[in-house]
Parts: sequence; C-alpha cells; structure tokens
Amino acid sequence: MKRNVIVGQSGGPTAVINSSLAGVYKTARDRGFHKVFGMLHGIQGFLDEKYIDLSKYIKNDLDIELLKRTPSAYLGSCRYKLPEIHEDKDIYEKIFEILNRLEIDSFIYIGGNDSMDTIKKLSDYAILTGQSQKFVGVPKTIDNDLALTDHTPGFGSAAKYIGTSTKEVIRDGLGLSYKKDIVTIIEIMGRNAGWLTGAAALSKGEDCDGPDLIYLPELPFDVSKFLDKIRSLIKKKHSIVVAVSEGIKLADGRYVCELSQNSDYIDAFGHKQLSGTADYLANLIAAEIGCKTRGVEFSTLQRSASHVASRVDINEAFMVGGAAVKAADEGDTGKMVVIDRVSDDPYQCATGIYDVHKIANDEKLVPRDWISKDGTYVTNEFLAYVKPLVQGDYPPVMVDGIPRHLVYK
Amino acid sequence: MKRNVIVGQSGGPTAVINSSLAGVYKTARDRGFHKVFGMLHGIQGFLDEKYIDLSKYIKNDLDIELLKRTPSAYLGSCRYKLPEIHEDKDIYEKIFEILNRLEIDSFIYIGGNDSMDTIKKLSDYAILTGQSQKFVGVPKTIDNDLALTDHTPGFGSAAKYIGTSTKEVIRDGLGLSYKKDIVTIIEIMGRNAGWLTGAAALSKGEDCDGPDLIYLPELPFDVSKFLDKIRSLIKKKHSIVVAVSEGIKLADGRYVCELSQNSDYIDAFGHKQLSGTADYLANLIAAEIGCKTRGVEFSTLQRSASHVASRVDINEAFMVGGAAVKAADEGDTGKMVVIDRVSDDPYQCATGIYDVHKIANDEKLVPRDWISKDGTYVTNEFLAYVKPLVQGDYPPVMVDGIPRHLVYK
Repeated sequence: MKRNVIVGQSGGPTAVINSSLAGVYKTARDRGFHKVFGMLHGIQGFLDEKYIDLSKYIKNDLDIELLKRTPSAYLGSCRYKLPEIHEDKDIYEKIFEILNRLEIDSFIYIGGNDSMDTIKKLSDYAILTGQSQKFVGVPKTIDNDLALTDHTPGFGSAAKYIGTSTKEVIRDGLGLSYKKDIVTIIEIMGRNAGWLTGAAALSKGEDCDGPDLIYLPELPFDVSKFLDKIRSLIKKKHSIVVAVSEGIKLADGRYVCELSQNSDYIDAFGHKQLSGTADYLANLIAAEIGCKTRGVEFSTLQRSASHVASRVDINEAFMVGGAAVKAADEGDTGKMVVIDRVSDDPYQCATGIYDVHKIANDEKLVPRDWISKDGTYVTNEFLAYVKPLVQGDYPPVMVDGIPRHLVYK
Repeated sequence: MKRNVIVGQSGGPTAVINSSLAGVYKTARDRGFHKVFGMLHGIQGFLDEKYIDLSKYIKNDLDIELLKRTPSAYLGSCRYKLPEIHEDKDIYEKIFEILNRLEIDSFIYIGGNDSMDTIKKLSDYAILTGQSQKFVGVPKTIDNDLALTDHTPGFGSAAKYIGTSTKEVIRDGLGLSYKKDIVTIIEIMGRNAGWLTGAAALSKGEDCDGPDLIYLPELPFDVSKFLDKIRSLIKKKHSIVVAVSEGIKLADGRYVCELSQNSDYIDAFGHKQLSGTADYLANLIAAEIGCKTRGVEFSTLQRSASHVASRVDINEAFMVGGAAVKAADEGDTGKMVVIDRVSDDPYQCATGIYDVHKIANDEKLVPRDWISKDGTYVTNEFLAYVKPLVQGDYPPVMVDGIPRHLVYK
C-alpha cells in the first residue's frame, strides 16, 4: 500500500520553483499517495520537525494554478549542507526517524547543485542502513549550471526577464543620449556560469541592437582592454550598454568587484558574496573617460519576476516535479530528474533521470565556442540554445492590478 | 486651411510617453492636419533641424499599437532648458523661423515640469511677437509631481511595476529567512515627491504584508530612529523589507546617500544626481545590527518597464496626447492638458486644460495626511488614490519570447 510523499525546496528562489512543487503535489495525488507533506525551509526546517500537510493548503485546481505563478519558495527554502554520513550519524538517524514516523515512501527535493548533494547523502544512508525510502531530486536554479540536464527550470524565466529588461534599459539609454554619451553597465547574476549574462543578448532583434558588449565569468576580464573597447565604441554611438556577470574575474583570479571593496562575507556553502561590479565599472568609466555612466543591478528581481515568466519554463518545472514523483514511486532513488532536448526546432524536450553521484557539485559552464572569439559576446549557437526556453507567457492572475500569489500562512 | 503639427518628447523616459505620442499622431491625422512632424530629441534636436515626418514611420494601426507598448522616448528626449526670452532672442528667432518654414500650426510637447516651462516661454514669445502657432503641453512623469493634474501619465505604470516587484522581492526574502534575519532596502525614484515610493504599499493585500516601512522624501529621515525601528522589527520577524525614496534627507537637508559619498554631479536643471541610498542603509544595518542585508535599486527599470504597464495609464497617456492636439487646433496656447478625476469608485476621469503659467516648476508632494503619523507608511487614502491608476494590463506584443517595440531608425 502506498503511503506518503514529502517534498522540500532548497537554495536560491526562482520564478518557477513553485511550479515544480505544484507538479509534485498533483502527480502524488494522481498516483494515489495518501498524503503529501511539505518540509518548511527544506531539510533544515525538517530537522526542526517543521512540515505541513499540503492538502490543507492547496485546496483546489485554482490554488495549483496560483502556485505555478508564485515566485520564491512557497514552503520556504534553506541553505543547509548535510554533514558527511561518517561525521554526524545523529542527524541522519533523526531524519529517518521522522521519515518513518510520517510513513514517507518518497522524498522529493527541489534545488540546485547543493541540494542534489542532500539527495545523494540521504539515498546513500538509506541504502547503507537498509531503509526503503526513495530519494529523487528536481533540478532548480536560475544559473543553469547543473550538469547532465540540458537546462534547469528557473533559467528560462530569468533569461526572459533579463532579455526583456535589457531591451527596456537599452531603449531608455537611447532616448536620453543626444549630444552626450551614456554608458550603462548591467550586472547580472551568475557567479561562475555566464548563462544568465549571455541571455542579455535575447534583447537583440530587428528592433534592437542588443547590448554592445557581454562579459561572462568563464573568461578572464581585462580592465584596460575593456576601457579601450568603451573608448572605441563611444566614438561611434552615444548610448552604450554592457552586460556583465557579477562574477567576472581578473586573470589573477580576483573578482572585479573586489577592486573597489573588501568582500569577506562567505555563505554556508563557502561562496563569496558578491556585489558592486556594475557600480565599480560605471565609476571607473566615469573617472577614466569622463562620460555619464549608470550601474543597473538586476539583483534579486531577476530570480523572482514571475510576472514575466516563460510558459515553457513554468510547464517544464511542473513536468519535472511530476516526473520525480513517478520515478520515486517506481523505485528510483539517488537520482535527479533531468531535461533532455529532443529537438531544437521545433523545440521538444522530455524528462530523463540520472544518478546524483554523477551530478552534484559539478558546475556546467558556457562552452568556449558559444562565446565570441574576443570574449565580448555570445554566439548564435548560444542564442539558438536559449531562445526556445523563453517562449510563451504565463500571465499572473491579477487582483486589483497586482499579481496574486499563493502563500503559506 | 489646416497645416502641420509638430510634437516632441522631453525629460526622463516613461513606459507610456510613446502612448501620448501615438495619441497626438492619431488625433492630428483624424482632425485633418496635413503633416505630423516629430522633433528628434525635443527642442534641443529641433534647434539642430532634427525632425521627421512621422507618417513615414508610423505606417498603420499596428504601428500605433506597437508605439503604445514601446517604452522610453520614440523620438528621443532631451534635458534642455530654454533661456529666458530677454536673455537670448536668437534662439527664439531660430525656433520660429523653422516653425514657420515647416508651416506648423500646433506645437505639442510631452514632458514634465521643465517641459511645461518650454511651452510657457514659446507661447509667450509667440504672443509677444504676434505669431499664430499654438503651444500645448502633455503631462508626463513617473514622479507624479505635476501640480493641477490629478496625476500624470507614466506614474500608473511605474507604480504598477513598483507594487509588483516589491511583492516579488518580499516573497524572495520570506523564502530565504529561516533562522536568519534578512533586511532588504528597496530604493525607489522620486527626488522630492514620494508618490512612487508610496506605491510600494500596493504590494500589500490578502497574500502579502507589504513592506514593513516606507520612507518618503516629504519628511526628514532620522537615521537613529530608523535603526531602532529595524531593531524592534527584527525581534518579531526574520525578513524585513523597507522601501525608501532615493531622495530621503536628514533634518539638516543633506541627502541620506550623501552620508556615504560626495555627490557633486549636477544636471542641466540644477538637480543633484543621487544614488546609493539603499546600499548605504543596507551597509549601515549590517554594521550596526549585524544581520544580512540587501540593497535593491529599481533604478531605470521602474520607468521603462512597459512589459508590465497599466492599461489605465496607457489609455490615459493616449487620451491626453489627443486632447492636446484638439486644444491647440481649437485655439488654446500656453496650456497643459490635465487629468481631472471625476470619481474614485468607479474610477472615472476626464481631460481638462490649464494655463502653464500656473503649473511650471511647482512640485506636487504627497500630502502630510496621506503619510502615517510616525512617517513610516502611507495611508489608505493614498492607496485609494493610486489603485485605480494601476488597473488592467496592456500586454506587449511578444516576438520570439521578447516584447517587440516600434523604433525610429
């Protein structure tokens, strides 16, 4: 007899992580699971016995639709890394005690690289100790840096936001640039992978030239060559827009933003907290070249903008959530659902499943040959890869002029 | 016999200034004007003989619809202040020489306070020198600080963007705030008037608590009282979101952002360029209280986000453009079209017309009694005023997943 499912969300929010949650919930109900529990704030909250019976909160199909349109993590997220099994068995015993008490068959965790590490450790522990629960991961990250999956849910919507907003910023600059030069530096998320920054090129089309320069973190950034590029561009046009990754680094490995500040805040996963690359470069150009400059940081807006989400992305996020429940129900464990691209044009994709031992902590970067030779743009191959992922709209349900969300309260 | 119309755009871009341009164009054609010229980059470009025949670029009704959905100034904008008539008659003689050569009857200028100053001077000069052209202004500014009009086109869409994005940022913070405190400071445009900053309260509703604190530039900002508020809030909740105007000032008149930097860039109208208020306050809280903080600047995004424009706003912008042509055609000069609110609920408005001599350079601020007693929020009266202006959507025409704009090339 089938028992219960539990699902959690982890890592940085996206516009569609809740669509995956909706997919988990719906498929679990459809497949006849008894209850669907939600961990509050992922495995960290779960360790504090914080979980809810989702059926008490997702009451009908309209709620499912609202959930698909709600950004950030409905259940709350966490950034919590489980210790190695040999380091602290007590934590694992506690987790499995709760799982057994709640009669959980399937444990679904929606997250990025660090979350797949959680799936790996829990499935390993279950096998080591002869327990029957199945552990399956659902990919999620705006950064698109997970290996083995063609792309990750969350990326498409962030890319659509970035393409749209970059185009609006470019138009803004053009409107104002009569007889004066304006250089706008847009800072985009992506510590090591330039997928999101490259998406700024989506603004390019019949009605827009796109950004003039795009700098991904995959290649070293040369400040003086950059200034030369700007000096040369400014002779030809008045408004220049540059998209840079927050994570661009000098050849010696230092982050560009470190040139202006001492950044020593390190998060729980050992990542350095970054900010200020756009402002630094804007100030540098103002000082060195003397024109008006602006730094625009898309910041947290780019990962939460469900009001301009991609329909493809929302639907795929929903699909991988459902596929994870199906996989666990059919006996898979220690796996992550992936998206396989069957065809570029017409775009078609299908879910697959991979062993998380092959996935965790392996960052997928933009291939060198998808970046232009001089390192200042992305190629048409890059755009052919990204474009299918931003197609279609999934408009918010507007109440009194503002998007309505489904919230846990 | 009717001759020609010329129209220009001036000042900071908005999401709907082109909808006013579309309204001018359509009404001018409908009323039988021969040609509709567009100044490129406002009066500044006009002085350089830069203008186009708009009918060559706006070819059909689809183009009009695209124009209504295109942010920033289609014709290009300028920030150019005409000298007083007695200071430099040559400039005025040049302008009227071109106007007469182009057989202009009606001169329509879309802009804010500074642009109405242009309408005033040109209409004065025409009267002084016995010339027949009519000069009418069309209000435009996201800041909503124009006197005599109930509100200005551009404000509603910016307010809708701010309400929507604030809600998404609040959700983002809630998702991440387990067992740790996160204070997010959102910086919103508005040098002296807090209309836009107050619009952050639109995020408040059944599914969202809204920002915890809202600071408008109308009242002096007390840094130590602010820190006390944060300290007190952080005892009750983990994620705190504060909306501040870029223009908040200390009791002694210094801008808060000046506390961290020396800002000495002054624009052509004598306005001090501001930036960094959110970052300053976020760093201050991190240092004084020790929690994680984030500064989010809506920056230029808030004035160009036509992808989330308000339908009421786009339609009103179109309407005031048309009303200006009608007024000039019927003999009005030295006037600005205004929007009169006929009723709040159901919301109804109509155009009116006022003498620009009464309007120019008179900033409309948020009334004291629309700000809470302790100065940290807006009242329900404020929200009742703003809400009708953000109603309805005017979705972009999406091409390949990204909004299509109409551009002059």
